[in-house]
Parts: sequence; C-alpha cells; structure tokens
Amino acid sequence: MLIVMKPGVSEVEIQKVVSLLETKGFDAHVSKGEINTVIGAVGGKVIDKRGIELLESVQEVIKITSSYKLASRAFQREDTIIKIGNAQFGGTEIAIIAGPCAVESLEQLEIIAEKLSKCGVKFLRGGAFKPRTSPYAFQGLGEEGLKYLRHVADKYNMYVVSEIMEISQISMMLKYVDVFQVGARNMQNFNLLKELGYVNKPVLLKRGLSATIDELLMSAEYIMSGGNRDVILCERGIRTFETATRNTLDISAIPVIKKLSHLPIIVDPSHGTGLRDKVAPMSRAAIAAGSDGITVEVHGCPDEALCDGAQSLYPNQFEILFNELKCIAPILGRSL
Amino acid sequence: MLIVMKPGVSEVEIQKVVSLLETKGFDAHVSKGEINTVIGAVGGKVIDKRGIELLESVQEVIKITSSYKLASRAFQREDTIIKIGNAQFGGTEIAIIAGPCAVESLEQLEIIAEKLSKCGVKFLRGGAFKPRTSPYAFQGLGEEGLKYLRHVADKYNMYVVSEIMEISQISMMLKYVDVFQVGARNMQNFNLLKELGYVNKPVLLKRGLSATIDELLMSAEYIMSGGNRDVILCERGIRTFETATRNTLDISAIPVIKKLSHLPIIVDPSHGTGLRDKVAPMSRAAIAAGSDGITVEVHGCPDEALCDGAQSLYPNQFEILFNELKCIAPILGRSL
Amino acid sequence: MLIVMKPGVSEVEIQKVVSLLETKGFDAHVSKGEINTVIGAVGGKVIDKRGIELLESVQEVIKITSSYKLASRAFQREDTIIKIGNAQFGGTEIAIIAGPCAVESLEQLEIIAEKLSKCGVKFLRGGAFKPRTSPYAFQGLGEEGLKYLRHVADKYNMYVVSEIMEISQISMMLKYVDVFQVGARNMQNFNLLKELGYVNKPVLLKRGLSATIDELLMSAEYIMSGGNRDVILCERGIRTFETATRNTLDISAIPVIKKLSHLPIIVDPSHGTGLRDKVAPMSRAAIAAGSDGITVEVHGCPDEALCDGAQSLYPNQFEILFNELKCIAPILGRSL
Amino acid sequence: MLIVMKPGVSEVEIQKVVSLLETKGFDAHVSKGEINTVIGAVGGKVIDKRGIELLESVQEVIKITSSYKLASRAFQREDTIIKIGNAQFGGTEIAIIAGPCAVESLEQLEIIAEKLSKCGVKFLRGGAFKPRTSPYAFQGLGEEGLKYLRHVADKYNMYVVSEIMEISQISMMLKYVDVFQVGARNMQNFNLLKELGYVNKPVLLKRGLSATIDELLMSAEYIMSGGNRDVILCERGIRTFETATRNTLDISAIPVIKKLSHLPIIVDPSHGTGLRDKVAPMSRAAIAAGSDGITVEVHGCPDEALCDGAQSLYPNQFEILFNELKCIAPILGRSL
Repeated sequence: MLIVMKPGVSEVEIQKVVSLLETKGFDAHVSKGEINTVIGAVGGKVIDKRGIELLESVQEVIKITSSYKLASRAFQREDTIIKIGNAQFGGTEIAIIAGPCAVESLEQLEIIAEKLSKCGVKFLRGGAFKPRTSPYAFQGLGEEGLKYLRHVADKYNMYVVSEIMEISQISMMLKYVDVFQVGARNMQNFNLLKELGYVNKPVLLKRGLSATIDELLMSAEYIMSGGNRDVILCERGIRTFETATRNTLDISAIPVIKKLSHLPIIVDPSHGTGLRDKVAPMSRAAIAAGSDGITVEVHGCPDEALCDGAQSLYPNQFEILFNELKCIAPILGRSL
Repeated sequence: MLIVMKPGVSEVEIQKVVSLLETKGFDAHVSKGEINTVIGAVGGKVIDKRGIELLESVQEVIKITSSYKLASRAFQREDTIIKIGNAQFGGTEIAIIAGPCAVESLEQLEIIAEKLSKCGVKFLRGGAFKPRTSPYAFQGLGEEGLKYLRHVADKYNMYVVSEIMEISQISMMLKYVDVFQVGARNMQNFNLLKELGYVNKPVLLKRGLSATIDELLMSAEYIMSGGNRDVILCERGIRTFETATRNTLDISAIPVIKKLSHLPIIVDPSHGTGLRDKVAPMSRAAIAAGSDGITVEVHGCPDEALCDGAQSLYPNQFEILFNELKCIAPILGRSL
Repeated sequence: MLIVMKPGVSEVEIQKVVSLLETKGFDAHVSKGEINTVIGAVGGKVIDKRGIELLESVQEVIKITSSYKLASRAFQREDTIIKIGNAQFGGTEIAIIAGPCAVESLEQLEIIAEKLSKCGVKFLRGGAFKPRTSPYAFQGLGEEGLKYLRHVADKYNMYVVSEIMEISQISMMLKYVDVFQVGARNMQNFNLLKELGYVNKPVLLKRGLSATIDELLMSAEYIMSGGNRDVILCERGIRTFETATRNTLDISAIPVIKKLSHLPIIVDPSHGTGLRDKVAPMSRAAIAAGSDGITVEVHGCPDEALCDGAQSLYPNQFEILFNELKCIAPILGRSL
Repeated sequence: MLIVMKPGVSEVEIQKVVSLLETKGFDAHVSKGEINTVIGAVGGKVIDKRGIELLESVQEVIKITSSYKLASRAFQREDTIIKIGNAQFGGTEIAIIAGPCAVESLEQLEIIAEKLSKCGVKFLRGGAFKPRTSPYAFQGLGEEGLKYLRHVADKYNMYVVSEIMEISQISMMLKYVDVFQVGARNMQNFNLLKELGYVNKPVLLKRGLSATIDELLMSAEYIMSGGNRDVILCERGIRTFETATRNTLDISAIPVIKKLSHLPIIVDPSHGTGLRDKVAPMSRAAIAAGSDGITVEVHGCPDEALCDGAQSLYPNQFEILFNELKCIAPILGRSL
C-alpha cells in the first residue's frame, strides 16, 4: 500500500500517518519526492484504504497488490488447462458448450443433442432452474431437467453444464453435472462461491452485468481459496449506455484476462447480445480475439422455446457457425 | 404492444405478422402511417418481444404497458404510507434509519442507540450477516446480532431494520426485525422476493448497482404480487464511468420514482458515496429532492469499526446533519 | 409518433391531446386498447416529444420513425460501396488504414509507408493537427505534415486519410487528403459536419466516446443531407465503468450497424483499447464480426513516437496481424 | 510516478527499468516490499505511462501527481471567489443564472428578464448560437441575439452569460457578455480553451457528457494556464445506463470538487434532467449539497419555445423555486 501525502504537508503530519500505520501492524517507509511525499506500507493486516484516505494530510492511497492471488498470472505463469474426459478448457482445443436456454423435455434435448454431437460439440448446456422476471413465466423443470440432461449427454458422449442457484442444490447437482455454472447475478454470492470451492468439479463463473474484470477475478479467487482450482471465466456482456444491444459484449476482456490470469476464459454471445442475428458475428469475434471457447444457446425450434428463444440459434445456423469457427481456430494455432 | 413495420413492406408481409399475433392470442389492429405501418396488439399472453422483432419485415416492437402494475401510480394515485408503530414511511414525516454497518457487540449498539434515540431517530439499523469480498474479513454475528438489535431497540423505543440474505432466514428474523432489508445484490433474487411477498412486515428494497428504475419497480412488484404491499424503495448509487465516488448516487431517481410509483423512496448516502465526508451533503440533497427518508451509517467509533468505518458518521457529525435535515424538511412541507 | 395515454384517462383528456396535435399540424388517430389508449400522430412538423410527455394525461410518447433517413437501410437496401482509386470501403475487399498517430517527419513517414505498402496496405494515415490534453505536448506539424503525407502516399501508390479539426481547414486539406477523418470529439460538431456535406471526398466519421449508435447515424445523416453520401463509420470504443482498457471497444456495433444502415463500418482498435498488446486480438475480432476494415496505428519506432506510441504496433507486429486478417477474410467471403 | 514491478522479477529486470527511466530524465528510487518492488520516479519530463506499463516486468504504473495544478486545492487552499459587479460565484452568496435556452426576440427577453430581476436574479442567460441535431431546427439569432441580451441585461441591472462555440467568436462576444459559457461538447476543445485563457472575463465551463471530474479539472487548468483564473465549473449530467432521465445529474460531484479544487461549482438542472418537473427538486438538491449556484432555463411561454421548452420552467414555477432556495441557503450559512 502506498500513501501519497498532499503537497506541502509538515513533518509532524507525516509522522502521524507513519505512527498510525505502525499501530495497524505495517512497516512504513517514507520517501520524499519533489512534490509529494509517499509512504510505502507493507506487512500489515487487511484494512479499508478509505480510512487512511480520509485523513486531512493524505492525498490518495494506492493498493499495489492485486486483491486476488491464486487467480493471478503472477502466481502461476502457465495457462491452466481444465480436462474433462476427452475435452478441455484452456488448452489448444477450443471448447464449445451448446444447448437450449432451459431444459423443456426429454424429446427437446434428444433432438438438439443429436445434432450438436454430430457437429462435434462436447458440452451440452441447459437450465433446470429458471427464476424469471415475471412470476408467471416458466420456472424450469428442476431435478427432473437435470436427469434428462445427464441421460441425453451420456447417450451422445457429451458433458453436462448447468446453472446452480443456491447452496442447497450442490449435493443434488453433483450427481448430474460435469460443470457447475454460476450465473451473472450470483457472481458475488460469496457464500455460494465459498461452498463451490470445496467441490471437485469445475465451475463456470459468469461475469456480472456491472462487474469489473478485477471483481470477476476476485470472485474466482473466492472459489479457488477453498481448494477448487478449476474455474472457467465467462464474459457475457456488461451494462453500458448503449441500448441497441441488450448488453455490450466486452470482447477486449479476453486479451485483458489472458494477461492478468492463467484461467481459461470463454464467451457467451447469446446473453451478451440478446438477439440471434448477432450471435454468429460475436462468436467469431470471440474466437478470433483468443477466447478459449463459447457457450451458445441452440434450440431445435427457437420460436417455440419456453425461454429466450429470440437469442437461440436454429440448428442449421449453429452448424454454419461451427464450421466458421473451425476455420478461424487454426489461424490462432488452435483447433476445434 | 405495438409492432412498427419497416417502410415499404407489402400487404402480404403485414398480414403474416397479423396472423402470427392472432396465433399467440392477440387482437391485432393495423394502422397505416405515411412512412410506417403500425400494428397494435392487445390481449395476448406474455411473450418475448424480441421474437417478433427478429422478423424480417419488422422495424421495432414497443411494449406500451409497463411491466409493473401494483407498484405503479397509474394503479394507485395516492402515496402509500407505511406505518410502523409511531413512525412512518411515505407520509409527511421523514424517516431516519441510522446505526452501524454491522452489529459488533451489545455495548457498541447501546452506545450508538442512546445517542440516536436522543436525537429523535426511530429506526435502528445494523447488519447481522455480512458476506464479504474477502473470506478473511468479519462475517457478522448472525442471530446473536439480531437479538442485540431487538434488545437495544426495545430499550430505546426504536424499530429494527436489518438485512436478510437468504430465504432460510425469514422465519428466524421475523422474531427480531420490524423491517426486512433486501440488499442491492439481492434485488433480483426473485425467489427471495417472492417469499417476502408472504411476510407481514415491510420490506426495504435497495436498488441494484446496475439496475434501472424500471427494474427496481419490477422487483417491488414481485414482492407485492405475493400480498405484501409494504415495500420501501431505496436508492443507493449506480455504477458509472466516474470513479471519484464509489458509486454515483442517482438523486434524480427520487422525483422520477415519485412520478411513476406511489411507494415510499428513501436514500442511502453511506453506500451511495462510500466516504464519510460526502454523507452529509448527499443526505441534505436527498431530503431537498423529496426523499421520504434516509438510511445512514453511524458508529460510536468509526475508526474501530469492523465494517465500512470509512463511510460511517461520528455521532456528533450525525447530530449536526440531523438538525440540518430538520430545517430542510419544512421547506417541502414535511417534518422530521 | 405514438402517444400512449395513462390508463383510465377520460374522453375529454384524450380529445385535448388530439386537438393539441392537430394544432401542430398532425393527423391524429385514436385507438383504444384494453388498458391504454394510443394516439397515432402523422404528418406534423418536427416537435420535441418531451412537450407532449409532460401533459398530465400522457404516459409516454414514442417516436417510430428513426431520426436518420439517408443513412438508413430502409432507405437503401444495398450496401454503399465507396471507391477510391483501386481501393474501396464496403465491398468484398477489406480496407486497411495504417500509419503513425502523428506525422513527425518525412523520414518517419517514408520508413513506415514503404513497409505498409509492401504488405499491401492502400491507405496511409497520420495526424497533422494534434490538440493535446497537455498544452506542452507536441501539437502536430500542420500543413507541412499533410504535404509529407501526400508526397509519401503518391510515391507508394497509397491514399491519404487525415483528421480535420475545424471548418477553416477544409479547403486547404482538400489538396492533400483522399479521406477526411472526423474525430470522436467532433462527432457532434454539427457545423463542421454540415460543411463536409458539400465536399466531394469521403468522410471517415468516428463514434464519440459516449455516443449511441443512433447518434452516430444521425451525425452521418448530417453530412449526407448536404449531398456527400460517402460516409464511412468508425467504431473506436465507448466509455463504460470498466477501467482495465482505456475504452470498451463495442464490437457488437458492427452487426448492429450493418442491420440499420447501408454505410461501411470500420474499427479503430488502437484508440479502442489504448494498448499495443490488445490491438491484434481486437483487429481480428473486428474482421471476424464483419467489419469492412480497420484503421490501425503503426510506427517505425513506437518507443520514440511523439504521440500515442504505447498503442502503436511495431512494423513486424503489423505484418503478422495483416497475414492473420488475410486468413480470416475468406471465411466471411471477403478478401484483403 | 511509481512503477510497480511484477512479483518475483529479477534484479536485472529492475535495473533495466531504472536505466530506462534515467534515460528519460528521471531520478529513480527502488524500494522492495514483501511481494512487489516499487520504483519511484521523479523529475523527468511528461511521458505516456503506458509505454512503461507495456514492459514485460512491470505490473502497473501509477501517476501520483494530479494532472492539474492551478485548479487544485493543494495549490490554493482558500476558495476562489469570482466577483462580477455586485454579484459573485464561490462566496457565501449563491449565484442564480436564469433565462431562456435560446434568445428568440427582444420581446421574449424583456418579459422574462423583468420577472427574473424582480425575484433578485443577477445573471441573464440565453443562447445566440444553437447548432442543433436537426439541420432544419432553429439555429439561433447570432450576434443580433447577443445585442438583445446586452440591452435587456443593462436595463434590468443584470449580467450576461452566453455560450461561445468557436474561437472566431471571442472578440465579437467580448462586447456583449460578462461570462463566456463553454458547452459540454466543447469541454475538450483545447484550442478554444487555450484562447479563453487570454480573455479577461470569467468562463463557465460545463462538464462533458462522459467526462470524469478529473478531466473537467484538467480542462479548467487549460484555461487557467493562459492567465485567466476565473473559471466556474458546472455539473450538467453524465451519461449512464439509466434512461428514465436524459442524463444522470451527478450531485455528488459538488462535494468531490469542493475537496479537490478551490474553483466555484454550479449545477445545471435543466440539461441535467431534460424535464421541467425534475428541475425544482434537483435545484434544491444542488444547493443543499453545497453548490455555489445554479443555471436554469426559464421561459415566458415554454410551450412556444423554439428550443428545449420541455425543460424550461414557467415564470411562476421559477419564483416558487427561488423562494425555496432562499430558505435552504441559510442552513448552509449562505444567502441568495
């Protein structure tokens, strides 16, 4: 932590801050610049920097160590590669997660999974719990939906990715899913993150609508600090002033995160844009920018979907997209 | 719902949209303008407007009924006044909620409650559950903290406001609190909102960091649709590009909400700014703009606070502020 | 324009609004829905919709015709292709504009132009006027810089793109440039836009830092309404809460604009991210998402650049990027 | 400037950075912390910190001196008070600027000025140049409008505030105005700011739609560095994701700026909200938060206004507001 003093503060004022820091267990080193004196403080316990910042003589307090450690590339230089059966996140192989927004029936899943697995998709997604803005909308099939997912995934040699909403669902879901998905609204549900830190399956952590990249990495740290190092990050759009798209998909988060962290990062172009005709361009953009994969909504009959049909691809649209991505991947030295 | 067709679309294309709408249970009325044909659709079930918007011939789909009804001033013209003992939210009397960020001990609460009640504060606040960004920080006293709150509030004739984190805490908390607070991160935890709709105590609903006013009112609707009409809204700052303050306190949300809804609206200047020296100016601004109250953090010894001390007022600062607000209130025909 | 009345308004109140609209020259058609009555208004002069919205009986006023017309795809279905010598914007050939942020000397330009033209780049960029945040920083070479640009571009069979700052520079610049660039800060300098509407050279119009896509298209309309239809749009990042990148490059603006308008759209990944190591990923993303080109800063010796060296590519980095883009283009049926 | 090195970098890498800094004229001091080594650099010339940040061994570069100096409270502890005749900005007296958005005619100005001066308003505002989004809308009366303003202001002992659009208008406007207003879109028109630094009349500088407080102060610095120290800052709303108001008026900018700078700060609630019925609440909020004044649009007949009538107050609304502000001022030890 660096404490920048206001220009022209007296020696007495500087010593007051030094003493305060020492009380809190810090070693304090004073260095005087032309304009500002800067006090470096190391070794103390975690404190709220605003407390120091409110002191009359202090101009600014700067934290120099990032809030996350396990998730940081400074901590681990090589990319984390998460292996799930014959699939992976973070290696040279690009991961594709596809499937309907919500599990609606066994038939629905069968139809779509067959098509997806033929393309070569290894991860089947589908929501079983769908708390909705309207209390009258379809709320998901619950555990029944997870059973369908497991059954169909096994049949087609796929892996299951599904969203968890509450701590109480962990042990039940462990029987059905291969990857736990944490949605954007739960990105800072710290109790849930902590519990997922004790689970021995990978967690797909979605960025919150108004979360900074730094906050996303801190949430990953929460999971990792419990022992579970298999965290897959997911960019899915942030809220900005632009209303032409539901959210603004922050594609630049990919190279930024690649520099800051060793964890895999994928992109959700379906929620990121909210409209089917934007999904293919943004999927291509994601892979071209270096994303380790995408998670995309595909529905056998989007017009009849019980949830988010407007952002779901038709199976044939997905097939075309899949082939385009197959061509882009080698340009970055990767495969699909 | 209004469907605006693209300029120059053919009669056949218009009829296709009309037929589709009728399939979904709508009555469709076509009216032709100079440039665009507009189809009015009434009576159908709730549908995702994006599905229509994706049609080749459609330019735009506009929803004309707001998503909330019970919370709307169109539904109830007079202000909702929520009475709690001899206090109220939404009437001419301005409500002040004050107390520490977190309950730390019985002694801490005694000291602060005595001072607050002497001023005339009727609502005592304090957090019992504090999931924190860092897993190593103080996590709250839990039920013990609520007992302290109840005990001290009763002693000083005050009412208890405390935050609920999960559905499982409802029945336990009912014994201790007079107002359930729902935090910004839970504003769209629809399962929790739904359950609070069955409770017979008021709910203080905080606006999410990136929630629009419209979304805040939809969340209020969620609670109200369960039967609990006593919802108090709370503006507490939104995330913007400006980093000089932790959040940007949206004071204009007060007159906007007053026009759209009959529900009381208060302001949290402590979380809204994150810094003690901004709390008094923003509290005065809130009351001057027509807020029905404020909720403010006050601590007997902010420098020793276990949580958010930097945004907590010293007791004497609070006293000065309270007196300022007492002078502002009558200018708007209110009292404190 | 559609005027949505509040639920339950009387016939008298509806007639008042109808009369008011007729006074302003509109034809008004009333249609009654279950909850809201909607008044369609066509044919009147341009009015400020807020004036109607403030009426007590009115819930909302919705404009249904977009503010731009010439720039709209509804007005012209086929893509606009802007031809400049043997190059183009908006056709199947992707356009690459490259060069230093600022023209520094004839030598500097020679070195970089030689390398760029060898790659196959057809457009040479460079700023001659550089008003800077600090009054002490390099302010550009002015007309001298434009002469260098013209001279070097002619030598290597390239075209010149350079930024105009003020109306007074138009006639002078006409002698040197092939494309006028309008910077983000001037996107709503309507006087300048209007004058560029009378010029017979294409205009590259950059999106403002906080401009919506709709506002960008309105600014294009301003130029086009003067007669100059050759407008090239440019996405260069918007300001959001995320501070990890200088701006958030809105890649989804590409498919959105492609749907709304027939004008070419390119991307500036240098200003969009502000950091050299993000330029290549975002350039690939742009082309993969369907951009008609990119404008990118390349400098023979970025570490010595007088302006924005940190976001300029080294020549060899550019060469690698150029080859990557060459591989991506055919996947979208295009060439480079 | 502080250069934070990545954890675990070698001594050689540290020395490389030190050498580089010395090349650029800096004195470099290395101090080693538990995790990161920090290099303090003083005395060098202005450089782009991103250049250092891109070095492989560097984690982050932090500027510790603010970009502005003359505008900073560190430079001048006492509030700047700008006196104009018998009026002032920044002292105990609160300044009210009022008048129509645009000057439309001599009669219009006479009517409104008479009412305003009776209230006690000392500053008359009105736009003479109105570049508009639509090329067909009213564009202002130009110099004729300024003559009217001067004439009417003299008659009623008022001072003239009017917006300047371009450098070429300075000498002409000097004859008519008492305060030059720089609009939000010109806040970073550095050439204009520089010229206004040589003028001997105060400048009212409006915050840009997406400008940070830091950038606003840097723009003030631009003017002040030319010699003109009489800069009045003006908050007028920033662009956020919330669309219920045209902009989000950032009331917290008032206490923030009061701490950072000695310059007066006022608020424009008319542009800040865009709707008449929000103007009074936000004006009261501004004064209650410590604003040195407001600039507000008032029109004798807003429904007939040629520009922004929807955000203009009726004269009687203004009178009520003025009296409310008169009551709020003394609570903060001020007068009106």
